[in-house]
Amino acid sequence: MDKNLEKQFRAIVGADHFTDVQEDLLCYAFDATREQYLPEAVLFPGSVQEVSAVLRLANARGVPVVPRGAGSGFTGGSLPLKGGLVMAMNRFDRIRLIDTDNLVAEVEPAVVTAKFQAAVETVGLFYPPDPASYTFSTLGGNIAENAGGMRAVKYGVTKDYVRGLEVVLPSGEIVHTGSACAKDVVGYDLTTLFVGSEGTLGVVTKAILRLLPLPEAKQTLSASFSDMGAAARTVSEIIGRGIVPATLEFLDGASLGAVEKHFGLGLPTDAEAFLLIEVDGDQAGLDRSLNRVRSVCEKNGALEVKVARQKAEQDELWRARRAVSPALRAISHYRMNEDIVVPRSKIPEMIERIQQTAEKYGIPIISFGHAGDGNIHVNVMAGPAGEADLPKMKKAVVEIFEATVALAGRISGEHGIGLAKQPYIGMNLDAPTLALCRLLKKTLDPNNILNPGKMFPSVREAH
Amino acid sequence: MDKNLEKQFRAIVGADHFTDVQEDLLCYAFDATREQYLPEAVLFPGSVQEVSAVLRLANARGVPVVPRGAGSGFTGGSLPLKGGLVMAMNRFDRIRLIDTDNLVAEVEPAVVTAKFQAAVETVGLFYPPDPASYTFSTLGGNIAENAGGMRAVKYGVTKDYVRGLEVVLPSGEIVHTGSACAKDVVGYDLTTLFVGSEGTLGVVTKAILRLLPLPEAKQTLSASFSDMGAAARTVSEIIGRGIVPATLEFLDGASLGAVEKHFGLGLPTDAEAFLLIEVDGDQAGLDRSLNRVRSVCEKNGALEVKVARQKAEQDELWRARRAVSPALRAISHYRMNEDIVVPRSKIPEMIERIQQTAEKYGIPIISFGHAGDGNIHVNVMAGPAGEADLPKMKKAVVEIFEATVALAGRISGEHGIGLAKQPYIGMNLDAPTLALCRLLKKTLDPNNILNPGKMFPSVREAH
Repeated sequence: MDKNLEKQFRAIVGADHFTDVQEDLLCYAFDATREQYLPEAVLFPGSVQEVSAVLRLANARGVPVVPRGAGSGFTGGSLPLKGGLVMAMNRFDRIRLIDTDNLVAEVEPAVVTAKFQAAVETVGLFYPPDPASYTFSTLGGNIAENAGGMRAVKYGVTKDYVRGLEVVLPSGEIVHTGSACAKDVVGYDLTTLFVGSEGTLGVVTKAILRLLPLPEAKQTLSASFSDMGAAARTVSEIIGRGIVPATLEFLDGASLGAVEKHFGLGLPTDAEAFLLIEVDGDQAGLDRSLNRVRSVCEKNGALEVKVARQKAEQDELWRARRAVSPALRAISHYRMNEDIVVPRSKIPEMIERIQQTAEKYGIPIISFGHAGDGNIHVNVMAGPAGEADLPKMKKAVVEIFEATVALAGRISGEHGIGLAKQPYIGMNLDAPTLALCRLLKKTLDPNNILNPGKMFPSVREAH
Repeated sequence: MDKNLEKQFRAIVGADHFTDVQEDLLCYAFDATREQYLPEAVLFPGSVQEVSAVLRLANARGVPVVPRGAGSGFTGGSLPLKGGLVMAMNRFDRIRLIDTDNLVAEVEPAVVTAKFQAAVETVGLFYPPDPASYTFSTLGGNIAENAGGMRAVKYGVTKDYVRGLEVVLPSGEIVHTGSACAKDVVGYDLTTLFVGSEGTLGVVTKAILRLLPLPEAKQTLSASFSDMGAAARTVSEIIGRGIVPATLEFLDGASLGAVEKHFGLGLPTDAEAFLLIEVDGDQAGLDRSLNRVRSVCEKNGALEVKVARQKAEQDELWRARRAVSPALRAISHYRMNEDIVVPRSKIPEMIERIQQTAEKYGIPIISFGHAGDGNIHVNVMAGPAGEADLPKMKKAVVEIFEATVALAGRISGEHGIGLAKQPYIGMNLDAPTLALCRLLKKTLDPNNILNPGKMFPSVREAH
């Protein structure tokens, strides 16, 4: 970037909010993937007008701009692949309004999700989306990726809670989508076009979020099974009986073993499948739901069913669930963390195919995740050979994607496409549908300045 | 249309599924507005390939095409304003799949909403969206308009139940948005772009819908109040206590009077506001919810609270609610039926402003609707002067829209923009946002063949 142009960007945000010092740039070069790309500068706009001015100038001069929240994404969405500017949204960190009468909030994108959840809970309200990263990821990042989480089975994902957005387009124009109203059919639904667009269509500077009353009570139950089929049948039968738990998670035998080995939480290591189920709602109905869930588990041959009645016990169980990912990290440095999703009833078949792939390549593949909504975190790991297993791991991932598609599933349920999955997007989107996505990108960002190189495979790769 | 072109369209769908006979055309010239526009021909495609071929040809030759469901819309969405072809979707009338394991269905667009609801209920499932037209409107029409209904306060609107679509673009390209999966972040969320697009962006030929388990039980309570403020405070307090009823409807004094006069259902005619509340859920929690609702009503000075325990009593109450619209039709031939929406807490102020407008112009304005979600059906009627009141009525509508916007509301909550509200769309959408909507229309339909003249004011009107 030439010095004069840099000076102009610096002038827009102020010298205190602009850096091109190498040590600073390094801090904005990474995300939760292991890849790293250096930006040419990082700026921290302080207002929507500054965001607009930066984009207008970048658009005129063809400078790539990559919006960034906490940088905790798994697919490279916030990596400055083509250099240019990282637009760090850190200063947009206010909860502007929590409206208890209308169950809505107005937030800025850099608010950390857990902080927002805590704030609404103090006034008896509830913001359900809970990606695993919720203690550090931001609402803006969650919106950009349409983040999911454990409660999706009952409560849906981020897009189900976004009523409206203030978005700055690549042109610098500021648009306002949706509203605080519960119903709104004025014009096209632009809100959801931006939710999940991975920072490629616009920069969110404000969001109106829908809230729910905080459920009166919740309880957690765990059940272990000697095989995955029995666990999967249990899941189907719970939902089939009209009970929709707030969360319905599973760990496979290998995940259980990994957690136990590294954290020693007292989980059953002889089981091949472990279900973690939280029911929430009115106190009156809760015991009944819990008993019904328990009886379905027992009917399907659970080895052991435990109800965690005290908060401490519940926290312990959820700590185990959240410990899976760190525990796997300890097993091998080489790990591909996929998040396929299949219709819930296809989970047993999917797990079976994953096991076949693991055996075929002789590498560990460990699965856990959201049994209730079919979203499985598949961790393809290196065996004792370490780095030398990487080619096998890549082949295994493709085979797993193929099996996913064969079972009417999708290659990403909540992590997004970003950089990591773009070679595979055509496995889910047929040519006209992918062409429509590209056309929308080209229409909103004709100079391809906003998060360039993401989501869509380059033309060379696509052919 | 020249005879040769007509012959080509006829050849695509077959002679039995094409008509240009005047008597037939008349049947496809109207909707629930009082306006009428004759198409040049009506065709009834029988497959997605035929829809594609028709659009491809129409696009090449610049022939307007207006997709049509039941033609029951209130804003002119299905009127063939510019002539051309009506594409009647009647033959797409199959429920292709009801998947009880994964709580999804696959439907064609001409399935009548009530018929679909009944079909899923027989297997213990629930499709919540319930526009007032549900006994005759179609799922495709509901999707095109993003139809709402009474259950939106708890269950949301049509878009909240559409997981995926097969859509034919104006170019004839067939795209597939979304999937049956509960989570899906592969590519942009195209589904919601088409939901509520009023047949201006594409023709839906298939939809994947999300279902819920059918709630175990429901109960209905009614409460009358001597003033609207007390009723509105009751609504706020119910939700404030964390109870979200399945429906939370209100009638003002004039609606009550009109229903009583024409149907004699025994409603209290001395009340100024009447609430109709349905709670649903597990039997265990239901009585408690109902008692809590009742005590909130009593605390806020309800004149009378009645619980309808038997199905017959419940049906009677909902019959009263559904009788409002026909009862108003009997009062005057001249009626403008608006469906503004405001944040729930603004309802009392909105009702007050509506009353001021009624007094100012000396015409009856009758309000009823969805207190739970802030969506008010405002019926601006002619007084004894009849037709001569029309100019006053139009002014009153604009004043009501202005008040709506001042209270952070929207000019349409569920009816759409269509023809009826396009002059006012700029009251809600600022210039860049409206420009983005227009840009999307132009991108997807560069020759403006699909439902032309809808949603967006013509450039002349806009200036």
